[in-house]
Amino acid sequence: MFFDQSEYDNRLTDCRQTMERKGIDVLIDSDPANMNYVTGYDGWSFYIPQAVVIFVDRDQPIWFGRGVDISGARLTTRLSENNIVVYTDDYVHNTTKHPMDVLGELLISYGCGSKTIGLEHDCNYFTPLCRDALQASMPNAEFVDAGKLVNWQRLIKSDAEIEAISSAARITEKIVQTFFDVVEPGVRQCDAVAALYAAQTSGVEGVSGEFCAAIPMLLCGRGTSAPHLPWSGEALKSGEAIILETSGVSHRYHCPMARTVHLGPPPEVLSNASRGVIEGNAAALEVAKAGNTCEDVEAAWREVIGKYGLVKESRIGYPIGIGYPPDWGEHTASLRQGDRTELVPNMVFHLMTGIWMDDWGIEISETFRVTDQGGVPFASVPNALHVKN
Amino acid sequence: MFFDQSEYDNRLTDCRQTMERKGIDVLIDSDPANMNYVTGYDGWSFYIPQAVVIFVDRDQPIWFGRGVDISGARLTTRLSENNIVVYTDDYVHNTTKHPMDVLGELLISYGCGSKTIGLEHDCNYFTPLCRDALQASMPNAEFVDAGKLVNWQRLIKSDAEIEAISSAARITEKIVQTFFDVVEPGVRQCDAVAALYAAQTSGVEGVSGEFCAAIPMLLCGRGTSAPHLPWSGEALKSGEAIILETSGVSHRYHCPMARTVHLGPPPEVLSNASRGVIEGNAAALEVAKAGNTCEDVEAAWREVIGKYGLVKESRIGYPIGIGYPPDWGEHTASLRQGDRTELVPNMVFHLMTGIWMDDWGIEISETFRVTDQGGVPFASVPNALHVKN
Repeated sequence: MFFDQSEYDNRLTDCRQTMERKGIDVLIDSDPANMNYVTGYDGWSFYIPQAVVIFVDRDQPIWFGRGVDISGARLTTRLSENNIVVYTDDYVHNTTKHPMDVLGELLISYGCGSKTIGLEHDCNYFTPLCRDALQASMPNAEFVDAGKLVNWQRLIKSDAEIEAISSAARITEKIVQTFFDVVEPGVRQCDAVAALYAAQTSGVEGVSGEFCAAIPMLLCGRGTSAPHLPWSGEALKSGEAIILETSGVSHRYHCPMARTVHLGPPPEVLSNASRGVIEGNAAALEVAKAGNTCEDVEAAWREVIGKYGLVKESRIGYPIGIGYPPDWGEHTASLRQGDRTELVPNMVFHLMTGIWMDDWGIEISETFRVTDQGGVPFASVPNALHVKN
Repeated sequence: MFFDQSEYDNRLTDCRQTMERKGIDVLIDSDPANMNYVTGYDGWSFYIPQAVVIFVDRDQPIWFGRGVDISGARLTTRLSENNIVVYTDDYVHNTTKHPMDVLGELLISYGCGSKTIGLEHDCNYFTPLCRDALQASMPNAEFVDAGKLVNWQRLIKSDAEIEAISSAARITEKIVQTFFDVVEPGVRQCDAVAALYAAQTSGVEGVSGEFCAAIPMLLCGRGTSAPHLPWSGEALKSGEAIILETSGVSHRYHCPMARTVHLGPPPEVLSNASRGVIEGNAAALEVAKAGNTCEDVEAAWREVIGKYGLVKESRIGYPIGIGYPPDWGEHTASLRQGDRTELVPNMVFHLMTGIWMDDWGIEISETFRVTDQGGVPFASVPNALHVKN
């Protein structure tokens, strides 16, 4: 495991302190990134109900999941055997019973039947049915919204986490260089993405690649107006813009980046936008120093791009770190008007200043670390609109 | 688009008939596979709230999503412009308001404020908070569990869907052949997976590859006991077993397959298990004909593997088709004891007879179509334990 046990101990101690402050006795968290954060658990098993359970008065959490995943829990966590609890396979996709029935019974057997249970109400892998089943199985417990407790805790990174993101950045650099190299008129989008996946997965000297929380977003031509459109089998064309948004991943930590290429001389609208975004990003990074707020960063960016005649209604960034599908964002602060979250050293954001109009778009983004001097990008890749003639 | 409009019209007609039978006026579905099934929508945007809304008394559904994804909805569906409705970006990850507030107001403006609204209570991308917000915004509506209405509808494939899965099978064959070719002692797991991703993404002559609902599951050595463990940067070793479970994808349809390789002469326990699984799979396919039930298939398999001294507690298969992360399963029937779902021609299952013990495992699986004569696999790949000396 990349992280020392002390790293996990610190995370759990902080988590329990927040639970105590919020009056939560038991926290049930099914977010795979949060599960990884507090235990190291890593598996593609989040498509069925599972959770990490943290107790305010117990040192170790419980990993709760499906029987076939017990070996994965043993191999990727340091939890003791009696803190790994599984349900039998007849609970999987069964309309008459639910895995959360088992978890409820377990918690009652632990003396938690009348305790205050914190749930994450906006977690993708904790469905309404999960909550219904759990509540029905613990009729005397009080259920409260934990309010993304662990997500907020992930906002400020430890030095070891910064190191993991720095490793991911080396892979990001390799992927984006591959992007610049492979896109040519006549190359099919799927073949370009095949090269990107290979770079992302092999990694670089000394850093093996891991799976990313999202597919490589390769947007081409009119598709540059649609930030989440998957690639196709169409060939790239001269006169088209091509956007890539992706991330290298190391020890589950991401370092996302977006760049834009134009095959042939770019139209003035795109050149102008690229100058605006680059100048705007520089202004945003300068303001992204400890003590300023999230909305300060956005305001600095908006002021610059306004001079270029550009507007962007969507937020310009969000915190990142550990990621599992469907996304690498941490779902807490946003770089946008009205978000007064104060910046603290070692917060890490993806400054995602993509602009998507009706029939064109541009993305030039940076993942940066907050310091006392401003935002410092992790990856070093030329940010100009990359023109291939 | 691969499918004719008539295919979507048929799907919607069937869906509305089931809604009528169940007394549901409006169905809200956030499952990306279901959204694709009824509209063709395809985008990596499911990490934030979105839905397809089907009305029992209106021809076209509504696509509801985030503003930045409007272009993606226009490019991947045939919906008319007024059936694509978006919310503004300030609703994204905002603790004071929720996208489902907007959907609730919209439905009230459509005269649905007192109607019966069907929800999918066990959909990964429809969180408890989504349901809470929607219910709060429509205080006079009646909310009912739609019970995976669209998922069940997907169980029997049209001829066009069978064609899509057949295309995916060609890519599956290429990926598995690549797997047999690249695994060698000394090759890093991540480099082997890089080759698999490249094969999956490039596709084959005439069929470009698409993203898969899951990562290539490459399990090595002791990791073969853990079916959902991600690959690492470790080198493959002589004397180890290596399992791959993955899928080619075409037009969003999957054709999963698992195969097992052994580097060097295999231990008897693995050779025995491979013979048992292969004979068991053949027995299962023979029984997987129209008129039999899901549990009949499992019983036939279990009887065979019992002779080899093997047991498997988890189900041996599930229906597949359209897939988005986190999985390619349809979450309806299961090939297991007690499931009396009757098999009908053109149902498609992944016969996933993986066995995972404490320190070893084996997977040899097939995706098959139900016919009157039995289960017919889509992909043609030798199923023996593949020994590389």
